[in-house]
Amino acid sequence: MTPAPADLSGLSGRFLAMLGPHGVITDPVRLRTYECDGLTYHRATPAVVVLPETAEQVAAVVRACHETGTPFVARGSGTGLSGGALPRSDGVLIVTSRMRRILEIDVENRRAVVEPGVTNLAITEAARPYGYYYAPDPSSQQICSIGGNVAENSGGAHCLKYGFTVNHVLAVELVTPEGEIVLLDAMDPGYDLLGAFIGSEGTLGIATKITVRLSREPETVTTLLAAFPDVETGGVAVSAIIGAGIVPAAIEMMDALAIEAAEAAVRCDYPPGAGAVLIVELDGPHAEVAHEFARVDAICRESGAFAVRVADDPARRAAIWKGRRSAFAAVGRISPAYLVQDGVVPRTALPAVLAGIERLSARYGIRVANVFHAGDGNLHPLVLFDDAEEGAGERAELVSGEILDLCLEHGGSITGEHGVGVDKSRYMPKMFTAEDLDTMQLVRCAFDPRNLSNPGKIFPTPRLCGEVPGVRKGVHPLVASGEADLF
Amino acid sequence: MTPAPADLSGLSGRFLAMLGPHGVITDPVRLRTYECDGLTYHRATPAVVVLPETAEQVAAVVRACHETGTPFVARGSGTGLSGGALPRSDGVLIVTSRMRRILEIDVENRRAVVEPGVTNLAITEAARPYGYYYAPDPSSQQICSIGGNVAENSGGAHCLKYGFTVNHVLAVELVTPEGEIVLLDAMDPGYDLLGAFIGSEGTLGIATKITVRLSREPETVTTLLAAFPDVETGGVAVSAIIGAGIVPAAIEMMDALAIEAAEAAVRCDYPPGAGAVLIVELDGPHAEVAHEFARVDAICRESGAFAVRVADDPARRAAIWKGRRSAFAAVGRISPAYLVQDGVVPRTALPAVLAGIERLSARYGIRVANVFHAGDGNLHPLVLFDDAEEGAGERAELVSGEILDLCLEHGGSITGEHGVGVDKSRYMPKMFTAEDLDTMQLVRCAFDPRNLSNPGKIFPTPRLCGEVPGVRKGVHPLVASGEADLF
Repeated sequence: MTPAPADLSGLSGRFLAMLGPHGVITDPVRLRTYECDGLTYHRATPAVVVLPETAEQVAAVVRACHETGTPFVARGSGTGLSGGALPRSDGVLIVTSRMRRILEIDVENRRAVVEPGVTNLAITEAARPYGYYYAPDPSSQQICSIGGNVAENSGGAHCLKYGFTVNHVLAVELVTPEGEIVLLDAMDPGYDLLGAFIGSEGTLGIATKITVRLSREPETVTTLLAAFPDVETGGVAVSAIIGAGIVPAAIEMMDALAIEAAEAAVRCDYPPGAGAVLIVELDGPHAEVAHEFARVDAICRESGAFAVRVADDPARRAAIWKGRRSAFAAVGRISPAYLVQDGVVPRTALPAVLAGIERLSARYGIRVANVFHAGDGNLHPLVLFDDAEEGAGERAELVSGEILDLCLEHGGSITGEHGVGVDKSRYMPKMFTAEDLDTMQLVRCAFDPRNLSNPGKIFPTPRLCGEVPGVRKGVHPLVASGEADLF
Repeated sequence: MTPAPADLSGLSGRFLAMLGPHGVITDPVRLRTYECDGLTYHRATPAVVVLPETAEQVAAVVRACHETGTPFVARGSGTGLSGGALPRSDGVLIVTSRMRRILEIDVENRRAVVEPGVTNLAITEAARPYGYYYAPDPSSQQICSIGGNVAENSGGAHCLKYGFTVNHVLAVELVTPEGEIVLLDAMDPGYDLLGAFIGSEGTLGIATKITVRLSREPETVTTLLAAFPDVETGGVAVSAIIGAGIVPAAIEMMDALAIEAAEAAVRCDYPPGAGAVLIVELDGPHAEVAHEFARVDAICRESGAFAVRVADDPARRAAIWKGRRSAFAAVGRISPAYLVQDGVVPRTALPAVLAGIERLSARYGIRVANVFHAGDGNLHPLVLFDDAEEGAGERAELVSGEILDLCLEHGGSITGEHGVGVDKSRYMPKMFTAEDLDTMQLVRCAFDPRNLSNPGKIFPTPRLCGEVPGVRKGVHPLVASGEADLF
């Protein structure tokens, strides 16, 4: 599982000179700390870990890697769930956790400039005194880094109304895979390279400074918890809410097994007997929220909710969210092991896909707890198994994989917000032709001709970028006639 | 100015076989109709015009161009203002105006699927019976095509609240520059090639089917017209509105000269004596709009507005918008000729940039009328001149160019929403290094290795894509060790 790390002692010596002993880890025991991210199924001990504190140090490290043909992987807080920050045993792991300065809170222009190691929640905390916050909110927001959010284009419960990371990042300073420091700005004319960089999972470079949009804190937030007999009736309510033209800040659903796990772990005290709960959050001006709340309440009851609770103060809202936020970890209470899946389907296909998951669960004798961003059609099935039981892990893997097939059959995608990483690259050919994947790789080659920046992620069969001179050096001005027909 | 069209009679013959006589134009007089788009300063008569009716026909035309090394340019309605659809006298102009079918209005999933020649407003008209509309609204929305909107990532007055084309396009079927039909979907994992395609100004292929998001019609729309003594006080009001956390659907400003032109052309009857007017539109649930309207009204008066008018029925709203919508054309009433500029700056830099424009205007003796999306910091200075006067055109060009320098000095960009096209490619080196531009060109080469798709646009010095085999064919699977260090 874990190949022995390569000997990069020459390179480590150069890193020591650049970063000092505090900034370089080569001790095998300490290196093990970094062997995986939030997806612990894949592990590899990096040959060396560096902890730069400035963009210039990141650039110097990357240039040294580029010169020596050494692969490198960037890592923020290591909370990713697709193995996007899985190290290379023959490479360098560049950890950004010491780059934690909040450089500017520019209230007038509603933006903040931060270093990549700053946690998602720290941006909100810095902006809160001015009445602002940073909108995208992954469940891991207390720990996860904004650099990692940029790499994965992270979502969160409130992305239904407010959009993903890509909708809130205005500019990124990055170190290219060749070690140059460049700036990509959303206002730039020409191709939207900022858009291509966000969500590129570390394959196009390493963000060293990030300008994010700050959002005004809403005047009011109201959270509603509705209990339904089953997920089908809950799904009817979701469609009816969206169909009524209401865009809640969040619509989350949990099924009976997810509720059972959450109750066991954090005693969230949801209405007894619920086959599904829906959490609907509304925010905005007080008058608007009050108006919409009345409609959501009525729609839930008409759709079959047998209990509705409302919270409009922070403590009672937190109580409702506690069960949802703890759901992933909570399944540890009802199952020795589990896989977190991440798929997305058109919202209207949710009932069919949920029924399909139930059939898979029955066929393989594997329980599946469902937690999802219902408004987005983004499913997070938790596939439960007992790792002490012969073959159970394999069956869980089969179920997890077939859930993605179900998503694809219903016009969905293999990932909603966790990324492709190392874990899902094998599914990419189910969505793309070989030619499509080659086109994406050519985009990568434009940034990373030597394929050193997080190689082995996203693409099922990595490709070389052809002869370097052909791609990078063989570009000649067009002849005066403008003719391109010279091949 | 207009080189003689090349003889592409062999190719024209093939097009005739594909499209029939109705679908091919070779008559020189009829070809002249297509010699420019909305930017009439640049003209070139295409060698041949084709009018395909299906994606397959577009693909067949493009494949024929690719085989013969013939450049091609796509054109929608030809309303673009940066010369993005300027034809090539040695190439084929592919006009999408016969691809006008609305293929699907999917109310449940809030999306519409349309062909590229459908006009922007036609989507809204098709969705209106269901209570929906298509949000981005260029001033040319009655005529401009959705395919052109995708190519230019078009904006409009209401993009302050609702975002640009890129925020409303969910998927695009396109013909690549090599003639393949492919689908890019916003839900796709991997690089965001849809994001890169939108706004690529025809250089990465031709959209043949577009899936757009439909927005729910707001319950209420209220439009407010506030008259100020000058643009400075109007600017104070804009900052105060945004600073109060209000996001109006639109905030537009016109200065005294723009008002004078609009009065002369359409008698919009704005309050007499205004040095600037602000049009603020609020939309949403009735309760929210009423609440925010009271605040906007108060802020305008506190900031120095001497007259405020309110319209909440369609007829009175239209009367307020009439002056703004006609502003570009209206300057024809007060000046024999004019240039439309398009720049963008951070909103807080608006006063400094407007003062700078005033200085430029005085120095060169050239009048400038300012019309702008104030909430976005997106300026549309109209540079007025008399083309009968010796040297006036040249001075107007200088003023227009120096306005962009002003925008850049203040942290802005050379285009807010009209694109780079042929007109602004010369300014690209002011924003980007040669290396940055080469990286963008390598992205283009991933799609268009022969540089045939709208060549000569965006990039100041077009480049060849190196040896074709090096880029497209020389990709080999990585060796098993995963080492990329083979160069």
